[in-house]
Amino acid sequence: MKLASRRKGRDGELLVVARDLASCASAAHIVPTLQSALDDWDGVAPALESLYARVNAGSAPGQSALDVTLLDAPLPRAWQWLDGSAYEQHGELMAKAFSRPKIESEYPLMYQGLSHQFLGPRDPVVFPSEEDGIDFEGEFAVITGTVPMAASGQVAAKAIRLIMQINDWSLRKLAAKEVKTGFGWLLSKPACSAAPIALTPDELGDAWRNCRLNATLEVRRGEEVFGRVPADAMSYGFDELIVHAARTRMLCAGTIVGSGTVSSSRYAEVGSCCISERQAIEMIAHGSAQTRYLSYGERVRMRAFAEGGSAPLFGVMDSTVAAPGAA
Amino acid sequence: MKLASRRKGRDGELLVVARDLASCASAAHIVPTLQSALDDWDGVAPALESLYARVNAGSAPGQSALDVTLLDAPLPRAWQWLDGSAYEQHGELMAKAFSRPKIESEYPLMYQGLSHQFLGPRDPVVFPSEEDGIDFEGEFAVITGTVPMAASGQVAAKAIRLIMQINDWSLRKLAAKEVKTGFGWLLSKPACSAAPIALTPDELGDAWRNCRLNATLEVRRGEEVFGRVPADAMSYGFDELIVHAARTRMLCAGTIVGSGTVSSSRYAEVGSCCISERQAIEMIAHGSAQTRYLSYGERVRMRAFAEGGSAPLFGVMDSTVAAPGAA
Repeated sequence: MKLASRRKGRDGELLVVARDLASCASAAHIVPTLQSALDDWDGVAPALESLYARVNAGSAPGQSALDVTLLDAPLPRAWQWLDGSAYEQHGELMAKAFSRPKIESEYPLMYQGLSHQFLGPRDPVVFPSEEDGIDFEGEFAVITGTVPMAASGQVAAKAIRLIMQINDWSLRKLAAKEVKTGFGWLLSKPACSAAPIALTPDELGDAWRNCRLNATLEVRRGEEVFGRVPADAMSYGFDELIVHAARTRMLCAGTIVGSGTVSSSRYAEVGSCCISERQAIEMIAHGSAQTRYLSYGERVRMRAFAEGGSAPLFGVMDSTVAAPGAA
Repeated sequence: MKLASRRKGRDGELLVVARDLASCASAAHIVPTLQSALDDWDGVAPALESLYARVNAGSAPGQSALDVTLLDAPLPRAWQWLDGSAYEQHGELMAKAFSRPKIESEYPLMYQGLSHQFLGPRDPVVFPSEEDGIDFEGEFAVITGTVPMAASGQVAAKAIRLIMQINDWSLRKLAAKEVKTGFGWLLSKPACSAAPIALTPDELGDAWRNCRLNATLEVRRGEEVFGRVPADAMSYGFDELIVHAARTRMLCAGTIVGSGTVSSSRYAEVGSCCISERQAIEMIAHGSAQTRYLSYGERVRMRAFAEGGSAPLFGVMDSTVAAPGAA
């Protein structure tokens, strides 16, 4: 199933989107919002599935062309956003560039981030200062159902309701200060942007394996292809990330759990999904970073492809960085 | 004004509580929940104020005795919980005990915590293991209206809608591991408990000065008075904590911003609001900590008093630590 939210109020209006992303139908007669669908998934999923079948057959009532300019994030706000750092390759590059030991941890690295606002796929992204080191981070995430405290891997895997794509905007100069306190990322992690389409695991077919996404994330900075990075090299699967998140807490339905920046050991060939990783590669190779952080007005686009596929799995994220008041 | 939430659905039913905490009336005819009141504060506050006047006169429709066993946290869930560490005295003691430098930061220490669940004042508190170093942290917090990104101190101070009291349960053995990663507290900070009554700043009179609470927090572990600690020694006021939180993000209405563990330089006389601070004091004095962390079945009570007052400002928090399945 492919789901999206049309801008409406704070939580959007739930849409069921055709497999080819060309058309959609409102699901409001079944359930008004994606959050309310997640709150009663077993109750509403069958009706959403049959609406999906009708949309794919072109016979849903009120079916219309998908207007991407009207789409919000799939969950325009969520009760919880827990972002992992599951690509160890990325951590190794960062440690090497800064000549510091790799962060040692017996379990996945993860922080709790801002969840009361996920920006839509075409929303301008406002930051208070260009001096803070504005960076993007292309990654994937899952949206869970309710997960009990101390859940097993099997329970965690079954709780994955949807897969989505996120740009976890980061302010690197603030992050460099925050990492020293032990209190985690706060100023350095403002609201994320989200790609418009969320997919059920079955919809991904072979591209969903072992609770990992077997797809390529393409990141463009302006007209430059910044990275075309395979996403399958997660050191921890999403099931393991959920197990970690739930070790001492229950997760509510609608919790979003992220992979962290997609990264590959073939970085010389495939590029990177954030500026700071490329800077790290430059520092290792040349002793200094050449690539600068983002300026106001710059455009960042992200989309993901399954192997052999040409349609973006989660639709397109097309964001422009903006000064306060300019948006 | 004194507000509380009676257990009902996920977000509770808003109650207006009499000044003497003896009786209350439902505010459901004005606005169903505290979150919805915060979303439209200017619109609903006048009607809530006049209901408060009637409750204090004993003439509100449906007014009844306040049954504290029916109360939930004022906000049973919130979109955002940002907890500061504004009592520098506490940080200094911890640094001295562990012979490490005090965490240096040019601004307040703050992390984003679990907000999809605030436990009610008498709810059992379930932890997965007694081996994780179960501790309490008595503190105060404010609930904000909407705060724009990069807000000034004046805007921040005006955005303080309510003051509340929180027990920020902590798992110290997990915290010791998490502090090393830089990713902040996650496993070590499960859901908090909340005292039942939230107060508007005007209700506190002289006890609310310079965006700080001039009151004493009493913490009991079983029958022992663990601390009776004055709360006025915050190095940063709540306005400054809000300014920090909003530096790179908008805060939504209903954001809760915490002070961190209340602490006093007169600790030898007044005690502590968490076990780990007392352990630090013991380590400094005797070279080792004698006080142990909490075990299942232990009871922790907290209440706050204004100077010369004998009624608990925020009602009473009375929590029992429980094993999974025992609650």
